[in-house]
Amino acid sequence: MLRYEVRMSPAATPVRRQLHTPPVDPSPFPHHPGSLLSASDLSLEGVSHILDRATALENMDPLLRDRILAKRRVALLFYESSTRTRTSFELAAKSLGADTALVSSLSSSIEKGESLKDTGLTLRALGAETIILRHNSSGAAWLLEAETRLPILNAGDGMHEHPTQALLDLRTILAHLRAGLTTVTAETLAGVTVMIVGDILHSRVARSNMLLLPRMGARVLLCGPKELLPELAAAAGPGITVERDLEAALRQSQVVMMLRIQAERLAGLQLDLDEYKAKYQLTGPRLATHAPRALVLHPGPIIRGLEITAGVADGSQSAILEQVRNGVAIRMAVVERALSAAPKQGGRA
Amino acid sequence: MLRYEVRMSPAATPVRRQLHTPPVDPSPFPHHPGSLLSASDLSLEGVSHILDRATALENMDPLLRDRILAKRRVALLFYESSTRTRTSFELAAKSLGADTALVSSLSSSIEKGESLKDTGLTLRALGAETIILRHNSSGAAWLLEAETRLPILNAGDGMHEHPTQALLDLRTILAHLRAGLTTVTAETLAGVTVMIVGDILHSRVARSNMLLLPRMGARVLLCGPKELLPELAAAAGPGITVERDLEAALRQSQVVMMLRIQAERLAGLQLDLDEYKAKYQLTGPRLATHAPRALVLHPGPIIRGLEITAGVADGSQSAILEQVRNGVAIRMAVVERALSAAPKQGGRA
Amino acid sequence: MLRYEVRMSPAATPVRRQLHTPPVDPSPFPHHPGSLLSASDLSLEGVSHILDRATALENMDPLLRDRILAKRRVALLFYESSTRTRTSFELAAKSLGADTALVSSLSSSIEKGESLKDTGLTLRALGAETIILRHNSSGAAWLLEAETRLPILNAGDGMHEHPTQALLDLRTILAHLRAGLTTVTAETLAGVTVMIVGDILHSRVARSNMLLLPRMGARVLLCGPKELLPELAAAAGPGITVERDLEAALRQSQVVMMLRIQAERLAGLQLDLDEYKAKYQLTGPRLATHAPRALVLHPGPIIRGLEITAGVADGSQSAILEQVRNGVAIRMAVVERALSAAPKQGGRA
Repeated sequence: MLRYEVRMSPAATPVRRQLHTPPVDPSPFPHHPGSLLSASDLSLEGVSHILDRATALENMDPLLRDRILAKRRVALLFYESSTRTRTSFELAAKSLGADTALVSSLSSSIEKGESLKDTGLTLRALGAETIILRHNSSGAAWLLEAETRLPILNAGDGMHEHPTQALLDLRTILAHLRAGLTTVTAETLAGVTVMIVGDILHSRVARSNMLLLPRMGARVLLCGPKELLPELAAAAGPGITVERDLEAALRQSQVVMMLRIQAERLAGLQLDLDEYKAKYQLTGPRLATHAPRALVLHPGPIIRGLEITAGVADGSQSAILEQVRNGVAIRMAVVERALSAAPKQGGRA
Repeated sequence: MLRYEVRMSPAATPVRRQLHTPPVDPSPFPHHPGSLLSASDLSLEGVSHILDRATALENMDPLLRDRILAKRRVALLFYESSTRTRTSFELAAKSLGADTALVSSLSSSIEKGESLKDTGLTLRALGAETIILRHNSSGAAWLLEAETRLPILNAGDGMHEHPTQALLDLRTILAHLRAGLTTVTAETLAGVTVMIVGDILHSRVARSNMLLLPRMGARVLLCGPKELLPELAAAAGPGITVERDLEAALRQSQVVMMLRIQAERLAGLQLDLDEYKAKYQLTGPRLATHAPRALVLHPGPIIRGLEITAGVADGSQSAILEQVRNGVAIRMAVVERALSAAPKQGGRA
Repeated sequence: MLRYEVRMSPAATPVRRQLHTPPVDPSPFPHHPGSLLSASDLSLEGVSHILDRATALENMDPLLRDRILAKRRVALLFYESSTRTRTSFELAAKSLGADTALVSSLSSSIEKGESLKDTGLTLRALGAETIILRHNSSGAAWLLEAETRLPILNAGDGMHEHPTQALLDLRTILAHLRAGLTTVTAETLAGVTVMIVGDILHSRVARSNMLLLPRMGARVLLCGPKELLPELAAAAGPGITVERDLEAALRQSQVVMMLRIQAERLAGLQLDLDEYKAKYQLTGPRLATHAPRALVLHPGPIIRGLEITAGVADGSQSAILEQVRNGVAIRMAVVERALSAAPKQGGRA
């Protein structure tokens, strides 16, 4: 009889919303060495392996690549709508020859109130060998892994983490600042300052980058109004500093990472949109004056004319579309890793 | 010119909602020997063939299996949302190498008021060689077959039938009680009592099982309050009995099949949820006391804490996830059968 | 750095809603020779090539066909719901071995307000080599091509064009009136009158046919009340005439193309539904009396009992389902063409 055990404990679903919480290792997570739940799961050796495979897979003949995971089963479980992340993972899995099954909250038993646990166990029983999860609750990917013992790829959990985004951002930065290096060490990004601008408080993209980049020696500058960036964010980890003045931050940075602003969230915080734009919008003149050689990143979708002007988004410093392209390569590597890794001893029912 | 004839008659769309209606053979249905509309369509020889192929296909090398229906076209037409049935059929068809096309009520001309008939004829003209249909109206699969003359796989029609569910339930039962036997006769389940608990009245799962299991000698015990289980249900067929007391039923059963309860339906019937749970919820103590060796089944999605406790759902007697796994195997066999069978003489325009 | 330039100009997004506007060539469109934006993009040589490949691909062994675009990436971007067009393109692309990615407005960043431009550029960065677009705004396909420089297949833009529909209609007409000819000239349809009945004003199907059929010598008769068919439509191009009397039109026509009527649109125009049906519904007696040998077409979805009776839709003169079948063949040819054509010099960033 197919059985599964419930070994849930409070530690098993870390909802680490507060920026000042140090990134504890919520051992014994991940259970499965093929999982990617947090940017902090990966050793630098692990990061290097993914970067290396991303390049190898990207350059491989598509018909050969099609055999790597031929007929393996990959489930995509999306509780939030998504274009780029969902399509990116889906095309990555298909490129490797896998059969994919998409379950989204729009057309599934999720509506009937089935729990994440039961949906996950059902997908496993249907033959899914890995589950790519996007969920609106922080910690959901941990819960799903604890319940299914499958390799889980966190494609964004609430306001918590989005580790493949951090990896694709890293690949983009390395392509421009380190000639496409794929082997990283604790000094690889020494001397590089990456500024992140906007709604840091609610951003899983910011969080995953804050966990990943400083470990390679990068300095991270956080920039935004105090409503979106509490003072104690600076204590989030080593190498992380707050600089509220956009132009002062630009002058120090080699990489400018803009975050999407949700207008309705600003309104909720009683922040004035025009005032926000006056202080934090990345405009052509600002960029030309203060950081004329910096690389401009944005996880998308961008709102032209809000956090970034159309001119900057489309300009020669922008690597926004390159990020999207790197996303497919990184996700091929990450899906391959999920299905290649053997589970831990006793880690699987 | 591609033509089609309309030979609809009242008999062609049997809406057999009432439990006491004997399962009449609505000849000339199914037109197509590859169809699976009702659990009563299948001879025991036919059931054995499906069970046998399910095992063979499940054990086959995935790359060989991929050639069986290579590039054949399978349409999934879903008027109700579904995770497990839709994904199960979809992965089954893809595993055999077929190209699938999903049409769901959320993103299709269905919204524009196109009839089931026209949607079906369109799918056939698009090259679909079989249509897997889930529909909220009882009898819809018969109508679709009458109109398209394609092999139709009924993936649930209203409150009527869900024959692949009955087959996967059977496979699960045989695995546990008959050592995985794949050849069934009228005596195979002699001495086995299967109880079905809950909203029998509205359950297509119950109905298909009631049509299938007694033919192999099983006794079926129906259990639930009279609002969800009218007295005359006992007259539904040979081997079917009503036993309103859950614990008395448990003591007689080797298999306990729990059905999902929709809380809003109970409210509509002015049934008290707490009272329902007190009388019919499958709990650990009840199971341990009255049926400590019985197999626990549930078609899913389960609502933990309503019809079944989390402990029982996850417990060692539960074969709920095994049912899901068996669903993929059964559906591979059923899709293969749909595309292998030649249409009846004159059965196709 | 992956860069893209914005060369948008007012001419770049032709919103040619008015029927009397002559079809100007909005040079330099299409940028990409693999695009199919308008039925007027194609030379008669180009039309012949597509017809020829449609037949060749339709007759090809499915396993060989699977290699033609093996593992190429095709994106479907649908801002309106659709069964037949979406499924037709999707199955066509899969038949050629391509990996497809569907992005629909129901489950994507479109909801988050991302612009068509950014969604298109994202799909390109994800590896899409062509984008099949359905959009509710006239001219959207031109905009998408201008921004992405990819081959774009217009699967319907607002009230403007639907060129693959015109091609499949042509293939259907040639099959019946010209023995399946695939090489067309300016005289191929000489002597053939095609009447189009209904809501001409809002119909992209009518428009694309009006741009295509007269170039092969066909005469086009437009039929409908003045609210749905302004008098100046007759000036839309050579070979196009208005005939308001349905029966007079039938007597002159070899092909009768019915358009779907949206009841709510009639109400908005204060047109009485019963009066409309009395004057314009295609009924069995009308057809038998006035055009007993004419071919009946309809782009679907049909509303039985509104613009067409069930008897006519299912009758021996109807080629409605054949149109659907031809759609898959045409779209295989068009997708193949999109991925085969080299971009114009300098046409790609």
